[in-house]
Amino acid sequence: MKDRALRVLEECPRIAAMSEEPGRITRRFLTPPTHDVHAHLRARMEALGMTVHLDDAGNLRGIYRPEGTSGKRLILGSHIDTVPDAGAFDGVLGVILALECVDLVRELHLPLAIEVIAFSEEEGVRFGVPFLGSRAVAGRFDYALLALKDAEGVTLEGAIRACGLDPTRITDSAIDEDTLGFVEIHIEQGPVLEAENLSVAAVTGIVGQTRLTLELAGQANHAGTTPMNLRRDALAGAAEWIAAVEKLAKHTEGLVATVGRIEVSPNATNVVAGTALMTLDARHPHDAVRLGSVNALVETANAITDRRSLAMQCTPQMDQPAVSMDERMTAYLVDAMEAAGFPPKRMHSGAGHDAMVMASRMPTAMLFLRSPGGISHNPAESVRTEDVEAALQVMRVFLQRIAGEIR
Amino acid sequence: MKDRALRVLEECPRIAAMSEEPGRITRRFLTPPTHDVHAHLRARMEALGMTVHLDDAGNLRGIYRPEGTSGKRLILGSHIDTVPDAGAFDGVLGVILALECVDLVRELHLPLAIEVIAFSEEEGVRFGVPFLGSRAVAGRFDYALLALKDAEGVTLEGAIRACGLDPTRITDSAIDEDTLGFVEIHIEQGPVLEAENLSVAAVTGIVGQTRLTLELAGQANHAGTTPMNLRRDALAGAAEWIAAVEKLAKHTEGLVATVGRIEVSPNATNVVAGTALMTLDARHPHDAVRLGSVNALVETANAITDRRSLAMQCTPQMDQPAVSMDERMTAYLVDAMEAAGFPPKRMHSGAGHDAMVMASRMPTAMLFLRSPGGISHNPAESVRTEDVEAALQVMRVFLQRIAGEIR
Repeated sequence: MKDRALRVLEECPRIAAMSEEPGRITRRFLTPPTHDVHAHLRARMEALGMTVHLDDAGNLRGIYRPEGTSGKRLILGSHIDTVPDAGAFDGVLGVILALECVDLVRELHLPLAIEVIAFSEEEGVRFGVPFLGSRAVAGRFDYALLALKDAEGVTLEGAIRACGLDPTRITDSAIDEDTLGFVEIHIEQGPVLEAENLSVAAVTGIVGQTRLTLELAGQANHAGTTPMNLRRDALAGAAEWIAAVEKLAKHTEGLVATVGRIEVSPNATNVVAGTALMTLDARHPHDAVRLGSVNALVETANAITDRRSLAMQCTPQMDQPAVSMDERMTAYLVDAMEAAGFPPKRMHSGAGHDAMVMASRMPTAMLFLRSPGGISHNPAESVRTEDVEAALQVMRVFLQRIAGEIR
Repeated sequence: MKDRALRVLEECPRIAAMSEEPGRITRRFLTPPTHDVHAHLRARMEALGMTVHLDDAGNLRGIYRPEGTSGKRLILGSHIDTVPDAGAFDGVLGVILALECVDLVRELHLPLAIEVIAFSEEEGVRFGVPFLGSRAVAGRFDYALLALKDAEGVTLEGAIRACGLDPTRITDSAIDEDTLGFVEIHIEQGPVLEAENLSVAAVTGIVGQTRLTLELAGQANHAGTTPMNLRRDALAGAAEWIAAVEKLAKHTEGLVATVGRIEVSPNATNVVAGTALMTLDARHPHDAVRLGSVNALVETANAITDRRSLAMQCTPQMDQPAVSMDERMTAYLVDAMEAAGFPPKRMHSGAGHDAMVMASRMPTAMLFLRSPGGISHNPAESVRTEDVEAALQVMRVFLQRIAGEIR
């Protein structure tokens, strides 16, 4: 397995070099380097005896079906697009590991059909909307999205046509038949596994997310001539709320709540702030907890602004429900982890993934690998050889169990 | 006195129209509209029988000496430069009221010599250094300042020469002989008199001021995947300190402390803040209180950043001592207020004024007029007729007492 892990760790930088920008890893939906990645993966899929095609949403899909097997297939995969100036492992690692899974199935002569999907789009960078690839596969693509434009004014429809694909047939990419389910392998992109000194975890679900902006308006005033008791300081009010956000999140199990952005006006050393605009990003695996927490924070903001004679405007930006992974599939994964000698760590994902979209269509599970330093969306993103080996060991057991199940 | 007050309130907008920008009041040091103001004021001074000259720092100075008097003169005045998009009263009101004082001395046949100075520069807008006019008059002009450049690359020396003045003779503008002292009449530029429903106040001193920047550095991280207990959130640390600054100032009599500016990086909704830069502006009439408070706040910042594993850099930007007004001159002013029927309100000034510089050279006092809404450095700046009338009534008594004193 160590050789297999090393092979995976050679493949990822090779694909990372297929980039829009020299010296940086940037590969947005269907930009030219995507075609190089497709050619590379197609060759590897074909060498594994897979039947390959590019669907009309730009997803590269290879099906491996051992001779004599006719049952439902297991779907594995992740995405091949990246954020600008990305690391080499976000998404791509899951695709390369999926190909190793096919090779394991071959080597072990398991009677298990597998489809590997290299999703075309997950990050939402080029057209501002994420999951374009998995939406199509899950039968959740909305044709209204075709009118979206990128920074150069190219429509999504035009970008798809430019690749020789037919945007009017995207819904044909949807998987209609019954499958065994979908498993995505992905780096954690957070610090939890590192903090707990663990290689891998089964993902129980993906958090729901609220985003909103909160704007406080007081009175800009001279910092020297305005006594403290006559101020309506928007930044002081903002600071009080930021502290309240952090306090509530620290005292609410599983909640993360972040004020990451603040814009103050006039933002001058010697002027009491007149306005302060903040953003809130709140996530929790249980929607009731998330929505209750956000309501409590808006009430706190009301109390703060009333007391300080500030005006307040709260504008919702996003309200995305939590998505649970399939319990049975996840239990298989956790059993495989234990059988392979790893602690049965379960955790939720604080970020969105293709698995979130696929879960609406089929039983879905997700395996996380430790992210050293918690670093992702950054050229310093990395993955440990021992953790890749761990993932392969877990997947070998998982594939054997799934194959045994359908025998 | 009402007619006199109305005349003052007609003069200020007339001078405000002499501006660098159509529709906005902007008159920086020695820019062309300054010459219009000089011509206007010179005509008024000459009509009052004053001897007028423009000194080499660009201060317009008129001396009124009643026939038969030979004693020390009283100096009155304020500045005629403005901030960009200014109001019509900051500075100019004090010059126009000084001319009315000369008229009162004439009318009352007081044996009192008066010099009125229209200081050329107080705001520090054009060359970034304030009080250029009063520094020259107080004998505190440093020739090194001549190398300062404005936004167009013109040096202070060049700007002075362009007006036909001799920058090498600026120190000749200094008042060497003994005087009775200096009195500046100015709008409060703050909300205190309005809050106390008072027309005028005697200024006891001008606060000392500390400015510094505080930069906190933590770790930028994914807002979804980084649990609360594994964060090093620079903005959350900043918020805690902003609250501490406000709390200390609210509990320290006479202290104003302001965080007016904050810059966060990467300043994105879904990223835990990696760095936060804040400014502190702290002012108090007693230097020991100000310096003690600033030290306490820096210690608080140290405690916050230690506990949060943030790095911290504190950079001092300004440390300007408090300046007291002359007790005897101020007592005359307060007596005059009471004699004229106004409460003997004393207050400190939270902003700098020419009086602060003049106080280093001669007994100095200052009279504040209520600023409606506390608004200044803004086109909405205003002054009430009744308050101008009050100032004139106070000054009439004051001038009578001073004239009686020297008789």
